[in-house]
Formats: sequence, C-alpha cells, structure tokens
Amino acid sequence: MTMFRGWAAPGKGAELQRFDFDPGALGPEEVEIAVEHCGICHSDLAMVDSEWFPVSYPVVPGHEVVGTIVAAGTHVKGRTLGQRVGLGWHSSSCQHCAYCLGGEQNLCPTRQPTIVGRHGGFADKVRAHWSWALPLPEGLDPASAGPLMCGGGTAFLPFVIHDIKPTDRVGVVGIGGLGHLAVKFAKAWGCEVTAFTSSASKREEALALGAHRTISSVDQNELKAFAGQLGFLMVTVGASLEWDALIGTLAPKGRMHLVGVVTEAMKLRTGSLLSWQRSMSASPTASPVTLMKMMDFCVRHGIAPQVEHFPMSRVNDAIAHLRNGQARYRVVLDADFA
Amino acid sequence: MTMFRGWAAPGKGAELQRFDFDPGALGPEEVEIAVEHCGICHSDLAMVDSEWFPVSYPVVPGHEVVGTIVAAGTHVKGRTLGQRVGLGWHSSSCQHCAYCLGGEQNLCPTRQPTIVGRHGGFADKVRAHWSWALPLPEGLDPASAGPLMCGGGTAFLPFVIHDIKPTDRVGVVGIGGLGHLAVKFAKAWGCEVTAFTSSASKREEALALGAHRTISSVDQNELKAFAGQLGFLMVTVGASLEWDALIGTLAPKGRMHLVGVVTEAMKLRTGSLLSWQRSMSASPTASPVTLMKMMDFCVRHGIAPQVEHFPMSRVNDAIAHLRNGQARYRVVLDADFA
Repeated sequence: MTMFRGWAAPGKGAELQRFDFDPGALGPEEVEIAVEHCGICHSDLAMVDSEWFPVSYPVVPGHEVVGTIVAAGTHVKGRTLGQRVGLGWHSSSCQHCAYCLGGEQNLCPTRQPTIVGRHGGFADKVRAHWSWALPLPEGLDPASAGPLMCGGGTAFLPFVIHDIKPTDRVGVVGIGGLGHLAVKFAKAWGCEVTAFTSSASKREEALALGAHRTISSVDQNELKAFAGQLGFLMVTVGASLEWDALIGTLAPKGRMHLVGVVTEAMKLRTGSLLSWQRSMSASPTASPVTLMKMMDFCVRHGIAPQVEHFPMSRVNDAIAHLRNGQARYRVVLDADFA
Repeated sequence: MTMFRGWAAPGKGAELQRFDFDPGALGPEEVEIAVEHCGICHSDLAMVDSEWFPVSYPVVPGHEVVGTIVAAGTHVKGRTLGQRVGLGWHSSSCQHCAYCLGGEQNLCPTRQPTIVGRHGGFADKVRAHWSWALPLPEGLDPASAGPLMCGGGTAFLPFVIHDIKPTDRVGVVGIGGLGHLAVKFAKAWGCEVTAFTSSASKREEALALGAHRTISSVDQNELKAFAGQLGFLMVTVGASLEWDALIGTLAPKGRMHLVGVVTEAMKLRTGSLLSWQRSMSASPTASPVTLMKMMDFCVRHGIAPQVEHFPMSRVNDAIAHLRNGQARYRVVLDADFA
C-alpha cells in the first residue's frame, strides 16, 4: 500500500495540516500524477470554509496541478508515463452523456470535481481520469501554468462560448486571479479592454496588464459616465455589486457574464436587460478541448499567469497571503515533500 | 386645421374620455394612417397608470394599429396612399445610427415610442415615420393582425435573435396576450413546447394552442420534477416569480428570456446560472424587418392572435375586461367614430 502525502484542512476554516492517506487501487482509466506545482484558487478556500455547502473533512484542496504521470491504468488512452500534464477543477466525467460525447465534458451531469469527495493537489500525488490530465504544450512554463488549469480556463471559456470578436469592446470586473488573466486574454484576442476595479492601486496594474482604460467598479458616477459602452463585461469577483449600474455600461445587445460564484442572491431590474436587449450569463470551468485551446493561445501570445511561489510546506502562509488580498495575482505551491 | 379624434386618459389610472387634438403639420417622411383596428397591450395600461415612469396626461394609448394610409409626406418612400399597414410600439427612429443602419431600428437610441410624448392609435388617425408603417402581407386578416404589431413581434423576436432551432425544447411562461402567440410560434417553429401557467383553466387552453405539455409556474414541486429539461424558456409575464426554480427547468446552456417588464427587482442566485452555463436575457419590441418576417411566418403557418373585439367607443369596458384577466387573449378595438 502506497500512501499519498498531503496537506488537509481537518475542519471548517481550519489551518491545513500534514495528512497521509491511502488512495486505493489505481482505476483502469486513471493516471497518477506526481505533483510539481499547484495553484491556490478561491474554490480551494470555499471548500476549506464550507462556503458553498457543508463539506466532509479532512479536505485536501488543490486543483490547479502541474505534474508528471508516474502511473497509468490499463485502459488509459493518449497519455504516457513521464508526460507532463495539467489537471484542473474536474478530474473525471462519464464519457457517454450528450455533453461528454459533444465535447462539453465540463457540463456532464456526473462530472467529478477534483476536490469534492476526493483529495486534490496539495499532495505529492493526485489521480484523475486520463481525459482530464492534459498534456502541457511545448513552450508553456510548467512553474506558472497551474493557475491556467482552473482560473485560466474559467476566464477563457466565455470568449469561446460567447463568440467574442476582436472588434468587441470588453470589460473585466475585478483584477485578481481570474481577472488579470481575463485582461490578458481580451488584449491578445484583439479587443478593446476596460478594467473595472474597486482598488485604486490596481488601476495602474491593470493598464500594465494590457487594459486600455480603467473604471471604478463601485463609483456610481464613474459607472454612469461610462454607460452604454461595452459589448461584453466579464465579472470575475464573488462580491455583491450594483448590478444594474454594471449592466448599464453595456451597449445594446451587450452581455454581462459571471465567472465567480456570488454567494448572496443577486438583485437586478428587468428593465436594465429588456430595453436594450441585453443578457446576463455565467459559466463554470472549461472542457478539456477548451483548456488545450487556451494553453496553445497562451504559448502563441506569451501569456502566463502572474504568480507568487510558496513551498507547499508553507501552504498556511500562502493561504493567509491570499485571504489578505495581497496575492499578485495567483499563488502557486511548489511541492516539497521530504 | 384637421383635428384627430381620440380616446385619452386625462390623468393617472383614469377612465378614458373622448379627446380631440391637433396633430400639427404632417412631417415630410410621415404617413397618416386611418385607424381601423387597434389592439390593447399591457404597455397601454402601463402608460395610463404611470406604471413605468410619470407620464404627461392626457395620454391617447394604442400601438397595435391596423389601418390605411390616407396621407403621405413629400419624402415618404415605399408606401402608397390606400395601402393597409400595421404600426406597433415604435413610430420612428433616427435612420442614421449604427442600429438603424444595421437593421435593428428597435435599438436606436432615439427610437420614438408611438404613445410616449405623442398620441397613439385609440383614435381615428395616427401618424408614423413611413419605415415603421408596415404593409400587411396578402392573407393576413386585418381585423386580428393589430396585436402582432407589438405583442406578436415581442414574442417572435427572441426566436430570431437567439437562433432558436426546431430541435429545441422551448417553454413559455404565462398564457396571455404574448404567451399564447409564443406557444403558437414555438409550435410552428418545430419545437417541443411546454406551457407554464399559474391558472388551472389555462392548462387545457395551452394544449389547444399547441403546447405538448403544461407545468404549473408556481408549484415548486412540479417545477422541481421538471428540472434540467429546456433549452429556452420565454417569460411573458410581469409578475415576480421564483426565478431560481424557473432557471432550474433549463438544461445546461439553457436560456431564460424575458419579454415582459417585471416591475419589482428580480432576485436570483448566480449558482443557478453558473454551474450549468445558463443565460438570462430580455428583449424589447421588434425591428421593422423582424415584424415583416413574423407576418410572413404567420401567413404561412396560419397563425393569428386569438382576439375579442370591442367597438372603440367601449374602450373602458374593454380595458376593464383586460384588467380583470378575462381577455382570451388579446382585445382589439374597432374604430367607430361617428
């Protein structure tokens, strides 16, 4: 019996502790990945905190993994030992429903999140169905690629599903883990980019990331002066905002699209959408094909997440750094099990 | 000076009274329409009641007009005296903005509603820019066509802008003026149709209109049992509903689309949209080209609004009938000025 070594939250909101566990037998379609790097995502904290639903502890978070395949089940396809792969929010899906067969495995009714009811990437090893262990393309830096696997894919998917065009005027609300990537994607996509942030210091940073202008996400006068401008507005934060005012920055036929779970119920007026034929939508993490498309796009445009590294043994310091809003913009843990 | 004869609300919520007014000089691009029939739409009552914003009285409602062109300005194009036309919510637009030039005159920033700041079709005559006075196609019954010009176009536009396909499973919430047409459109479009209503008696009627099944729009158990089914759900009512439960009836990638102004703010959870990549959107009344497309579709599929006729002199009885929820499904006034 080989034990996996990991870092787990023993209870709600608790600091992580070293935790060894038996992963059981390797499934015939599973690969086993030796973790090299693992990003920290807001969803990891949501699981530690039971923010979305009551969680069974211990929880080993981690779902922005980069590592190397060290074992493969007998029915694994298209993956080889020693191959460097990334693993994100999902680690398996049924393969036979209409969404799986249609290439949208991220919408499979029985999709399996990497850290819900199983243990994730804050460990020396993690397992996944081969189809969700995605080979890293040549030219992508493995040390910073982890955050692409969840946050990156989540910020990239809306460009694909909503058919964003280089002629579009795009806004991004929130310049953080997802938002800083959304700004980079929008710029590389050829769009005009407006960054919305509540933080004065991030306005300069957003311009450096490629935004053409910045707007306060909370100043009602600034929002009003920018009414009717955007074709697409991606909201990457989970905070409650003045939704009608944000929708007001959209041109006719514009869309506000959410990629962060807003815990509180949203309140908005139909009139904000109806008079000018606007939409509001949201999307989860990306499918394998979209993740691969994104990685290729990143290589071609020289896009990488801006990350700060912590050794995995300092995971609690890293989490504190993130909780304090100090991360610029994503934290990556480097596995350092003795 | 020719006076127009009409029926006007002298104040907020008041009964209509006979009201003559001077329309001024006919504009060079305007046509003058002798009103034969005019539908009553919820928006007429909203103006009478100052429901959406404070209105200047007197108000002559009426924006579902069918009539005959009896005068034309010097620069009118493509319209002739004696031609039978329909006129809906809009009576002019700027002609030169990107939306007008792009064929979406209904989104023109200076679009002019027929009954806001001017007098509408509860009168013997009404005027409009020629581009919004739309020739009725051969085979469309003029006596029942009025409600197509606003309600019909509003229920038809979503099929066009959201590219609804005959393979789609479509739901319609509310079987009334707009909803009964939405059901007929969806059926003729080749879709599977589910009608949602809070009225037990309307369930039978909805099946007769072409729905394949009916669901209670307010019974939480019935809604839950129907979770994850629909690709497109059109909400035609202005009441506050359990939005998360209705969104729950959508399959992944499904869209809830509103065509009625919900006066109260809507409350919903992001999670309802995010996990399954769903959308929520809304749209106003249709453009001239979409209205013409709809009229052709109606002729080809034998679709007509189901209407009840009142002489215009009994407009107050007609409004009371509508306010009592007794209309099946649209009331049309027949002009009877002495």
